[in-house]
Amino acid sequence: MIKINDNYLKLPGSYLFSTIAKKVAAYCDANPDKADNIIRLGIGDVTLPLAPAVIERLHSAVDEMADKKTFKGYAPDLGYEFLRNVIVENDYKARGCDISADEIFISDGAKSDSGNIGDIFAQDNKIAVCDPVYPVYVDTNAMAGRTGEYNTDTEKWSNVIYMPCTRENDFSPEIPSDTPDIIYLCFPNNPTGTTISKDKLQEWVDYALKVGAVIIYDAAYEAYISTPDVPHSIYECNGAKGCAIEIRSFSKNAGFTGTRLGFTVIPKELKCGDVTLHSLWARRHGTKFNGAPYIIQAAGAAVYTEEGKKQTKEQIAYYMNNAKIIREGLETAGYEIYGGVDAPYIWLKTPEKMTSWDFFDYLLNELNIVGTPGSGFGPSGEGYFRLTAFGSLENTKKAMERINKA
Amino acid sequence: MIKINDNYLKLPGSYLFSTIAKKVAAYCDANPDKADNIIRLGIGDVTLPLAPAVIERLHSAVDEMADKKTFKGYAPDLGYEFLRNVIVENDYKARGCDISADEIFISDGAKSDSGNIGDIFAQDNKIAVCDPVYPVYVDTNAMAGRTGEYNTDTEKWSNVIYMPCTRENDFSPEIPSDTPDIIYLCFPNNPTGTTISKDKLQEWVDYALKVGAVIIYDAAYEAYISTPDVPHSIYECNGAKGCAIEIRSFSKNAGFTGTRLGFTVIPKELKCGDVTLHSLWARRHGTKFNGAPYIIQAAGAAVYTEEGKKQTKEQIAYYMNNAKIIREGLETAGYEIYGGVDAPYIWLKTPEKMTSWDFFDYLLNELNIVGTPGSGFGPSGEGYFRLTAFGSLENTKKAMERINKA
Repeated sequence: MIKINDNYLKLPGSYLFSTIAKKVAAYCDANPDKADNIIRLGIGDVTLPLAPAVIERLHSAVDEMADKKTFKGYAPDLGYEFLRNVIVENDYKARGCDISADEIFISDGAKSDSGNIGDIFAQDNKIAVCDPVYPVYVDTNAMAGRTGEYNTDTEKWSNVIYMPCTRENDFSPEIPSDTPDIIYLCFPNNPTGTTISKDKLQEWVDYALKVGAVIIYDAAYEAYISTPDVPHSIYECNGAKGCAIEIRSFSKNAGFTGTRLGFTVIPKELKCGDVTLHSLWARRHGTKFNGAPYIIQAAGAAVYTEEGKKQTKEQIAYYMNNAKIIREGLETAGYEIYGGVDAPYIWLKTPEKMTSWDFFDYLLNELNIVGTPGSGFGPSGEGYFRLTAFGSLENTKKAMERINKA
Repeated sequence: MIKINDNYLKLPGSYLFSTIAKKVAAYCDANPDKADNIIRLGIGDVTLPLAPAVIERLHSAVDEMADKKTFKGYAPDLGYEFLRNVIVENDYKARGCDISADEIFISDGAKSDSGNIGDIFAQDNKIAVCDPVYPVYVDTNAMAGRTGEYNTDTEKWSNVIYMPCTRENDFSPEIPSDTPDIIYLCFPNNPTGTTISKDKLQEWVDYALKVGAVIIYDAAYEAYISTPDVPHSIYECNGAKGCAIEIRSFSKNAGFTGTRLGFTVIPKELKCGDVTLHSLWARRHGTKFNGAPYIIQAAGAAVYTEEGKKQTKEQIAYYMNNAKIIREGLETAGYEIYGGVDAPYIWLKTPEKMTSWDFFDYLLNELNIVGTPGSGFGPSGEGYFRLTAFGSLENTKKAMERINKA
C-alpha cells in the first residue's frame, strides 16, 4: 500500500505566490471591469523583453538546431563549457574569486537549485534562515522532513533557527545562539531589498568554518548592486570556498524568468569528511536532471558579450529607476521604507493597525495594486510589505500616484 | 556540523552513461586517429535536427520574447494551457482516455520527472522494477534511502523487488510474490525495446488497484509503436486513473533531447487515503521548479500541428528504418536479437563467454562502435547489449558492415 510523504501535509497553505495569484484572479472574476486596471508589483517577475543580443543568439541557436551538422542533443552533465567559461571570467575572475569552470553546474534556474540542493544533505541537519525569507528554502526543507512541526500560532517550525531581520537590527541577521548545520543567506536580500557588507559576510564565513556549517548563498540579485563594498559573490570572502555554495540566476539580471537559466557553484574544496559536496551534487545533477536547453545556454552566454552586458545593464538601470520612483513615492506618502538601493525590492512598514495581509487587501481592493505581504515570508515579516521595481515605468508611476492620492 | 546524505555513498560507481562517456573519451585520447571513426549507437540521443514546424515556432516565440507586448515571464505552475490542451486532444482524447488539461504537469523532461516523483512518497515504500531497467528509477530511489543496501556480488539492492525480463519470459515482467508499493513500468521498454499488450498491462493495473500500489508508467517511447494492440498510454486500461502516473517526453518523438520538454499525468482520482497525489505533485512542482521555458513550450505545441505531426512521424520512420537495418544486420551476423519493432532499441544477446562489458570493450576497441552494456541496466541485463536506432542512416549501415566483416 502506497505511503505518501507526510511532510507535505505539514506545510501551511499553498506556496505564497500561488495564493496571491488566486486572490488576484478571484478579484478580477468578481470585478471584471477592474481587471485591466490592476498594477502588478507583487511577484518578482520582470517585464522588459529580452535584450537584442540575447534574441539574436536565440535565433542563431535555433538555426543550429535546424541543421544536422550543428544540431545538439543531450548537453554535457555540468552544462556547456562555453557558458561556464564566460561565467568564470565575468562573475568570478573579474572579482578576484578563484572559481574554475568545473565547479559550476548550469541549471534551469535558482529556484530549482535552491530547492533541490537539500537532496545531498542528511535529514538531520538543522537549518538557519533569515526571517523574513524567500519561502522556497523553508518549504523545501519542510518537504524533506528537516524542519520539525509547524506551529500555526507562532508561524514557525520547531526545528528551524530563525534569524529575525527587522528595522531593529537594520535587517542584518545575527549569529544565532543555537548552532545550525546549513545557513541560508540571500544578499541583496529578497524580500527586504537590503544588503550585507563584505566585513559582515566575512564574519558569517568565519563562523561557518568554525562550526562546520555550510552556507547556501543566494546571489540572484547581485547585478543590482551599485554601492561599493557590497560583495557580489560570497567567494570575495577569505575561506568561503571551504564552506559556501553559491546560487545564481539569469532571471533578474537578464530577464530570464520565463526563459529559465541559472547555475550553482560548489568549490571542490568544500568537503564533509573525505567527501566533496561537488561529487554529490554532480551525481544528483547527472541522475535527476538532463541539462538546460542548448539554445537557452547559448542565450545565457550572449548575456556576457559586450553588447549583452551593455543592454542588460540598461535594463537594470530601468528597473532601478522604478525603484527610485517607488522609494520617493512612498516617502512622500509618509511610509517608512527600506531596500530599493542595491536591489529591485522595496520593503515598507505597513500603516499602524494594518497587518501585511490587511495591507495586501487594501492595495488590491482600493487601489488595484498587487504587492506581497511581508508575513508571507515569515513571522518577522508581519507588519511589512514588499513592492517590486519590475513593473513598467508607466505603471510604477501610476501606482505611486494612486498611493499618494489615497 | 554538516551531515551529508549517506545514501549517495551507497551508489555503486557513477551514472551509467557518464561511465560510458568517460570510457569513450579515454579511448579517443589514447587513439586520436580513431576518434573520427567512432560510431555512437550507445546513449539514446537523437541525431536528426528539429522538425521545420518546430524550428519555425521557436523563431516566432523568440520574436515574442523580444517585444514588450508579447514577452513572457514566469509560466503558469502547471505549464501553458495551450500546450496542455493539445496534449489532451492528441495523446489522450484521440485514444479514448479521459484525461483533463489540469491533470497534466509540463516539465523539463522525463528524466527529471521520473527522478523527482519519489519526493511525494514516504521513504518506507518498497519499489518494484523490471530488471534490466532505466537506471534513473533505481538510482534516485537509492538516493532517497528507499532501496536498502547494495550487494556488489548480486548487483542488487536489499529492499528492491526485481522483476527479471529475459528471453526466458519473453521480456515481460511477472507479478512479484513480494508486494510492492511503487511499481515502475516502461513500455515500449528501455533498454530491451520490447512492448506489453493491452491485456497484460490491464493485469498490472488490476493488481495495483488490488494491493493499493502506484504504477509509475514511463511512456517516453510510445511514438515508436506501430503494432496494433500495444497500448500508447496506461490510461487505455480500465481503472488506471486510480493507480497510475504516466510520464511522457518530447525527447524521442520530436528530437527534444537537447531542447528539454516532457510532462507527467497525475489523475485527480489517484489518492492515498484522502490525499490526492495530484495535490502533492502540484505543491512540489510549484515549490521546487519554475516551469519549462516559454519558447520551448511553444515549440512543444508545434509538434501537435498537422505539419509538426507529419514531420515528426517522418523522423520516427527514419529511425525505425535504422532499427530494421540493425535487426537485419545483426541477424545476418548470427546474433540473437529482440526489440527494434515498436521501439528504437535493439537488445542483443552477447556472444558466448562475453559479458556485457566485454562486448562493450570489443565493439569500442575493435570496431569503434559505442553501445550500452546490458548489465549497466541491472543484473538480468548481463549477457545482453543495447544498440540504438538514433544514429544516422549512413553510420547505422556502416556499423552493420563492420559487425558483419568482423
